Amino acid sequence: MSNAMSRCLWRDIIIFDGLRTRPEPMAVITEGARIITLSPMSEFDEQWAKDCTEMGRGGVMTPGLVDCHTHLIFGGSRAEEFEARLEGASYEEIAKKGGGIISTVRATRAASEDELFRLAQPRLEALMAEGVTSVEIKSGYGLTLEDELKMLRVARRLGERFPIQVVTTLLGAHALPPEYQDQSDAYVDLVCQEMIPAAAAAGLADAVDVFCEKIAFSVEQCERIFKAAQQHGLPIKIHAEQLSNLGGTAMAARHGALSADHIEYLDDHGIAAMREANTVAVILPGAFHTLRETQQPPIEALRQAGVPMAIATDANPGSSPLFMPTLMLNLACTLFRMTPQEALAGMTAHGATALGLEGLGRLYEGAVANLCVWDVETPAELAYAVQPGRLRHRLFQGVITHGL
Amino acid sequence: MSNAMSRCLWRDIIIFDGLRTRPEPMAVITEGARIITLSPMSEFDEQWAKDCTEMGRGGVMTPGLVDCHTHLIFGGSRAEEFEARLEGASYEEIAKKGGGIISTVRATRAASEDELFRLAQPRLEALMAEGVTSVEIKSGYGLTLEDELKMLRVARRLGERFPIQVVTTLLGAHALPPEYQDQSDAYVDLVCQEMIPAAAAAGLADAVDVFCEKIAFSVEQCERIFKAAQQHGLPIKIHAEQLSNLGGTAMAARHGALSADHIEYLDDHGIAAMREANTVAVILPGAFHTLRETQQPPIEALRQAGVPMAIATDANPGSSPLFMPTLMLNLACTLFRMTPQEALAGMTAHGATALGLEGLGRLYEGAVANLCVWDVETPAELAYAVQPGRLRHRLFQGVITHGL
Ligand SMILES: [Zn+2]
Ligand SMILES: [Zn+2]
Repeated sequence: MSNAMSRCLWRDIIIFDGLRTRPEPMAVITEGARIITLSPMSEFDEQWAKDCTEMGRGGVMTPGLVDCHTHLIFGGSRAEEFEARLEGASYEEIAKKGGGIISTVRATRAASEDELFRLAQPRLEALMAEGVTSVEIKSGYGLTLEDELKMLRVARRLGERFPIQVVTTLLGAHALPPEYQDQSDAYVDLVCQEMIPAAAAAGLADAVDVFCEKIAFSVEQCERIFKAAQQHGLPIKIHAEQLSNLGGTAMAARHGALSADHIEYLDDHGIAAMREANTVAVILPGAFHTLRETQQPPIEALRQAGVPMAIATDANPGSSPLFMPTLMLNLACTLFRMTPQEALAGMTAHGATALGLEGLGRLYEGAVANLCVWDVETPAELAYAVQPGRLRHRLFQGVITHGL
Repeated sequence: MSNAMSRCLWRDIIIFDGLRTRPEPMAVITEGARIITLSPMSEFDEQWAKDCTEMGRGGVMTPGLVDCHTHLIFGGSRAEEFEARLEGASYEEIAKKGGGIISTVRATRAASEDELFRLAQPRLEALMAEGVTSVEIKSGYGLTLEDELKMLRVARRLGERFPIQVVTTLLGAHALPPEYQDQSDAYVDLVCQEMIPAAAAAGLADAVDVFCEKIAFSVEQCERIFKAAQQHGLPIKIHAEQLSNLGGTAMAARHGALSADHIEYLDDHGIAAMREANTVAVILPGAFHTLRETQQPPIEALRQAGVPMAIATDANPGSSPLFMPTLMLNLACTLFRMTPQEALAGMTAHGATALGLEGLGRLYEGAVANLCVWDVETPAELAYAVQPGRLRHRLFQGVITHGL
């Protein structure tokens, strides 16, 4: 392919660069997998257009969206449980009855790798169709060595087969499997001594996550898991302070966690620890919506402290069956009073930071051309209106995957 | 075209028929614009497959969705106002500053018919892509005789140009235009004496709506408008009890209104009046979400009274910029504790009844083949998960418009 064919030019486009909206309309040129020009239109040189494919004028360009927290791979459906909740059962009641996450574990264990791949594909395509170019996918519904590795292999295969970057996370400590009832320390041993070493050895996990909550694992257990992860060179992150304030976030931050996720009940001590450690706050409005929570995450305190806030779908079958990244922009603004600029930064630059992908999720000359062009007039419209189908172009590593 | 070519067959499909999910998998055959066979698979006769195009097995079929309350045609954008609200301004403060609805009125008046058509098209396409086959579109951002008729003409054109049924509603009494400040009775005269007669004479309005609220029009003013509408043979409906309980719903029901919409503050007296008059309750969770309201509509009381509940997007630039019908199913369940079956009936059979389209929004032998086939396993999944792109087939009057 000649150079001429591999250059794309957008003119008069409004740029949200991952952190802010640029003040004037821009011209953007990509070549191969990179952005080579990002210039105000006032400095546009008509010579640049030579050898470029003209991609049109107007619209808004953002980095490709980064969905830094998902549980996209699972067997079964929880639609019945959704109906049951509407008849009055609580999330914890359903969990105690062997429903809830354990029903997903049963179905996931029973499913083959191919079956899980087939089930995850439309979910992944839904995220891609709304602009995601990097997605984190957690294990956590296998809860045996083999089933956790199976989930991670499916995640890797998805990343190989589709034009999207998949970042994998081992979440062996997602829930206590029924066969370990009343033996949670023994299960944590399994996570530390078998799952982490095996996932690390096979190169299947890019990070290790834990669910630190009364209904899951204690701060001390989570800390053991983090030490095991770090012995194997794996970065760590945590589900914490979602339903109560146990102090998991502060502990995770002390260990240098990439992110602390949910954090509705986070206190000032936890925020200070996050700031100290450059730990990203991952805000998950989908679970808040689905569980009808009322405890708001401490957005204003995080903002004041300068803790970067990422936003993610938390796409999962129980507490956030919401496979639509742009909806999260709206929910973050409407439910949590984040600004549209903060919401967009949360699904681009800060989402990338939460995955340890510093420099991704931003538009600049030299950046990898993971980007979206949207049929809107201002970046704020992406958070303001919920309207599928506004994605005009999606480029992954410079390749147009949508809209041509 | 031969008969053979115009028959389509679905096998082993789960049917939500507009009111309930049928207990066993079905076979469905359409011919021309009609459903000619709707049979349990246990009674399937292989002979039926002759001369049919096989449309596949599995999935869920519902009637085409009916979105019975939208403000889809408007100029301008309110994304900036959305940002302002996030900085603390209230809806009423924004309205008093000449922002809010009046900014949409200014932009809509300034726009040509072609421009309004062009702006509405992607919104309409977004609804169609998520399964809508009948949509109500209101005027109400013109607020002059000419601009209201302009909006209605655009609505009619949309119905002519796209494979969707458009039902138009004159909503001259949506807001008091600035030039009538402190002369609301004079404006109501304009609605009664000019807008209604002109819209009726031109055949541009299928119904007349009013906004009955302290910030809009009084019960008495709305009643005058209803009498004028009925003199011209036009059915009536009302936006009422959204922000306070003025009694507009009961008044509208006494006049035989098709629907009362929003009704968060509706009391037992109003519910009794609705039941008496067979007035449909139109539940609008998008505005509730966007405005962060806390007063829930009286779902349980409506359910007990047997008042049919429709659900609609209320798609509009101010209080519900949510152009996604399937999201409303989720919001109705999650926010208002409706069941998935109720939510689906609300966007099919009861939505149709709210528009006076009795018999539409249902699947039965002989019904018009407005229908959707979804890539889900149970109807409840449509309300449980928010995931654009699950629409496999959409038929409008028997013609496949999506998925082939
Ligand atoms: Zn999670
Ligand atoms: Zn309305």
